[in-house]
Amino acid sequence: MSDRQVRALVWGENIHEQVDPVVQQMYPEGMHTAIAGGIREYLGDAATVRTATFLDPGHGLTQEAVDATDVLIWWSHTTQNDVHPAIVDRLQARVLAGMGLVVLHSGHYSAIFRKLMGTHCTLRWREADDREIIWTVNPSHPIAAGVKHGFVIPRSEMYGEIFDIPVPDELVFISSYSGGEVFRSGCCFRRGKGRVFYFSPGHEHFPIYHQPEIRRIIANAVRWAHQSELFDYDLARIYQSRTGWFEAGSATAPPPPLHRPSPEASEQRQRLRQLIDGAKAQTGL
Amino acid sequence: MSDRQVRALVWGENIHEQVDPVVQQMYPEGMHTAIAGGIREYLGDAATVRTATFLDPGHGLTQEAVDATDVLIWWSHTTQNDVHPAIVDRLQARVLAGMGLVVLHSGHYSAIFRKLMGTHCTLRWREADDREIIWTVNPSHPIAAGVKHGFVIPRSEMYGEIFDIPVPDELVFISSYSGGEVFRSGCCFRRGKGRVFYFSPGHEHFPIYHQPEIRRIIANAVRWAHQSELFDYDLARIYQSRTGWFEAGSATAPPPPLHRPSPEASEQRQRLRQLIDGAKAQTGL
Amino acid sequence: MSDRQVRALVWGENIHEQVDPVVQQMYPEGMHTAIAGGIREYLGDAATVRTATFLDPGHGLTQEAVDATDVLIWWSHTTQNDVHPAIVDRLQARVLAGMGLVVLHSGHYSAIFRKLMGTHCTLRWREADDREIIWTVNPSHPIAAGVKHGFVIPRSEMYGEIFDIPVPDELVFISSYSGGEVFRSGCCFRRGKGRVFYFSPGHEHFPIYHQPEIRRIIANAVRWAHQSELFDYDLARIYQSRTGWFEAGSATAPPPPLHRPSPEASEQRQRLRQLIDGAKAQTGL
Amino acid sequence: MSDRQVRALVWGENIHEQVDPVVQQMYPEGMHTAIAGGIREYLGDAATVRTATFLDPGHGLTQEAVDATDVLIWWSHTTQNDVHPAIVDRLQARVLAGMGLVVLHSGHYSAIFRKLMGTHCTLRWREADDREIIWTVNPSHPIAAGVKHGFVIPRSEMYGEIFDIPVPDELVFISSYSGGEVFRSGCCFRRGKGRVFYFSPGHEHFPIYHQPEIRRIIANAVRWAHQSELFDYDLARIYQSRTGWFEAGSATAPPPPLHRPSPEASEQRQRLRQLIDGAKAQTGL
Repeated sequence: MSDRQVRALVWGENIHEQVDPVVQQMYPEGMHTAIAGGIREYLGDAATVRTATFLDPGHGLTQEAVDATDVLIWWSHTTQNDVHPAIVDRLQARVLAGMGLVVLHSGHYSAIFRKLMGTHCTLRWREADDREIIWTVNPSHPIAAGVKHGFVIPRSEMYGEIFDIPVPDELVFISSYSGGEVFRSGCCFRRGKGRVFYFSPGHEHFPIYHQPEIRRIIANAVRWAHQSELFDYDLARIYQSRTGWFEAGSATAPPPPLHRPSPEASEQRQRLRQLIDGAKAQTGL
Repeated sequence: MSDRQVRALVWGENIHEQVDPVVQQMYPEGMHTAIAGGIREYLGDAATVRTATFLDPGHGLTQEAVDATDVLIWWSHTTQNDVHPAIVDRLQARVLAGMGLVVLHSGHYSAIFRKLMGTHCTLRWREADDREIIWTVNPSHPIAAGVKHGFVIPRSEMYGEIFDIPVPDELVFISSYSGGEVFRSGCCFRRGKGRVFYFSPGHEHFPIYHQPEIRRIIANAVRWAHQSELFDYDLARIYQSRTGWFEAGSATAPPPPLHRPSPEASEQRQRLRQLIDGAKAQTGL
Repeated sequence: MSDRQVRALVWGENIHEQVDPVVQQMYPEGMHTAIAGGIREYLGDAATVRTATFLDPGHGLTQEAVDATDVLIWWSHTTQNDVHPAIVDRLQARVLAGMGLVVLHSGHYSAIFRKLMGTHCTLRWREADDREIIWTVNPSHPIAAGVKHGFVIPRSEMYGEIFDIPVPDELVFISSYSGGEVFRSGCCFRRGKGRVFYFSPGHEHFPIYHQPEIRRIIANAVRWAHQSELFDYDLARIYQSRTGWFEAGSATAPPPPLHRPSPEASEQRQRLRQLIDGAKAQTGL
Repeated sequence: MSDRQVRALVWGENIHEQVDPVVQQMYPEGMHTAIAGGIREYLGDAATVRTATFLDPGHGLTQEAVDATDVLIWWSHTTQNDVHPAIVDRLQARVLAGMGLVVLHSGHYSAIFRKLMGTHCTLRWREADDREIIWTVNPSHPIAAGVKHGFVIPRSEMYGEIFDIPVPDELVFISSYSGGEVFRSGCCFRRGKGRVFYFSPGHEHFPIYHQPEIRRIIANAVRWAHQSELFDYDLARIYQSRTGWFEAGSATAPPPPLHRPSPEASEQRQRLRQLIDGAKAQTGL
């Protein structure tokens, strides 16, 4: 039951950093580098932290890279619809198979997060001069460990309710803003064998990923999302199971041979296909 | 606060019914008709119940038909991948906008259910001679009203865990089978402004939709999933919100005009797009 | 499945009203009367609404009165430790047996609420000049029906996190205050066969129970907490159940006779009691 | 963020072991010793495991002993009403302050568990010849790590629904029995700053605590329930908070001096007390 080292991959766009002087000054080595630094700072030897960005070949999200990742930390904004659907499918499959996913800030509207949630993932926003306060509502949650109740982000983009997400499995933080809005700013979800954490702070114009509390929370989240021992079960498959299957072998043994369909069944199947294709032809879509 | 009549639409495939004598004998007018009959039996004047099937033009799921539906009851099996993606998107949008959805039996693997869940929605199954017992674990839930704790379905297809769904917002029923498996057989989910209920019994070879307890539960679910007054908020949109917006007007007022981008911003945007397109060209996908 | 009329009982202290001129002016007939008026206003013929107060004989909470109540609405502040434990037990038993309970404002610290929650039910507070804004985070919940997202209570007592409650089964509202605090202000709990809703607004110095949105929410809550048909199961009992009991009769049939203990068992029981009593004698408590 | 060693205390009754030959043979050194052995086996140096029993002076639950415990593992059956209320209060306070609690088998009916739940905690039971199968429904939960999906306890006491508990914050295991019943056999609860896990297997007549899967689950639960760093907040207190308090100091700073009550207020308070005492005198309780 010893904890294996977590292999974290911080993924950023590295786009604003190329074109916006404010961001360049705030994050001279890119936001992803600052985020990675915070994880290293708090997890030390317990983690190896790599980075990748949209600008890397294959966006740094090749099958190999994803397979070598235990927890993916995700920041996106301008490329929400530009990551190829095949890559989004790859990420979803990997989360359902047990990879942790920490989605930051505007990543709420990324294709991968929306696909895992099944909802719009919309919200309200304002870029003004709001002070954000982050309140802990789940004081025994590991992601809240070591964080002060009611800590302040001096300047922050407002993200307000209604945040169109499924009810989080665990709600850890709620934020308020000077303007009076509130936001469920720290939310845990379990999807398949994977753990997902959404954390809202992180507008690119503010030095938020340099703030100690934020860095600690993200490090906590990486640790929480990591499973050193994955549950031995393949959720991607539908299993046909003989009576008593669980006594004989493992839950993931190959399925018994399918019963050979009778000639009648084969005929039925053919007729069935004809009916389906006939109806499909008439939708005009 | 008076309850408006619920407009229910029972959707079936009507495919097995055309090709399989066992199903024809069990459900001479189609499974959808039996299901609709059960809802009428228990809801009476409180509901108008229509039916539609995969074999109808446009599968009976035109925009008009869907817009005129408060609660959609869904049974599918052989056509899971045959409903056009545009229709699935239409259904998802309508659920998120407040339509109720009651998904039955093999509908767990339909495109619409999987899209709303974000997970594999896989399970284990066996068509044998299992007796199923349905246990209530949420005795104050409206869907359990009037149902006996521990009622028996004499013959049923086994659906076993792990059922790869998000943790239900409310778990109402758990089933056991003669073979020893268990299943979370009655699960509520809230998605957007819509309410979704999954209920597992209903193999086409057994007279399950003629059984009183099953009919009562489906009728209860239709009632629960129906909202006579939808919350006044459009979740499909992202709102940019000025400070104090909520004091002035409604939550769904048109957004303020976007600030006109400066020449620098416009240049940044162009450069940004070039970077994105450049990186996309190199994924080879 | 027709809805029976709900018998609501609004319970108040009627103490501040006797001694504090501010409260007398705000609620000349008592806060309980104002609250009852709001329920009548929105539920009309669907409810009969009575009131009772701490000052009534037996506090108006005799067994008969409680038995005749479907939903109890509770406001308390100065008498949290003055309701007799036997009455608190009576209320708890009735909630677990299916009565709805709507706890308002400082009732968070009442003996009945704390007993049902099992936690401290503490919070932070400030009586100042805070504006409270109530945000809906569960837009398909019946308690949110007809309420504007982001409505304002011009002056309100601040109730802030950490609110030491179990995670609510459903979180409906989150409040923010001018001072920056947040609070889970509308929370649903299921306990036994009963439904419990906590709603925080209601400081006695402000005309909050005259505000339309507040009245609508409390009326919605009464409706939600009411079950016209209680689940047929007695949760107060432990059932010894023979194999196959559920096929023979109802879930609440009398238990089979206990197996007659053998002489050895009887001897064991005696020895066991001696051991227990011996150990108890040594605690010095 | 390094994990501190967990100080586990396994508490048993050690009563059946004194009087029942079947139990003596199965657990010659007591059930508590077997349970402790399983924790040591899987946690090794990560834990120090002590035991205490009802027969020890003060039941081994003095303030000192409890204060020195990070996670308490609890098995009780015959002494549910014999642990002194003051000790039960002590345990509850310690859980709410952050101690982990793992409640086993018939401990579902212990005073401490019922007090934390606020419900009856009743269930159905049968001591017969049932085979129990334990199914995992939360495959990314740390308590399920390393456990086979669908493992068998050859002989087990039946515990069946309805289990009258609040909806668990996390449902990890569901059991089925030969007789057809089901049970939510592994349930997580967060209460105050503490984490509580209930796990149902463990009838004293069967060698269940010698079974590897059971031992692994209990060890997992101890690890999950342990917090090496407790959240810095005292939930036992109600805080009066000045505007801006969170900017100045810590969340647990001493409260500001209470505003000195005016002579009018003092008079009001006196009158108020008279009213309360008058009404109490008339309840006849």
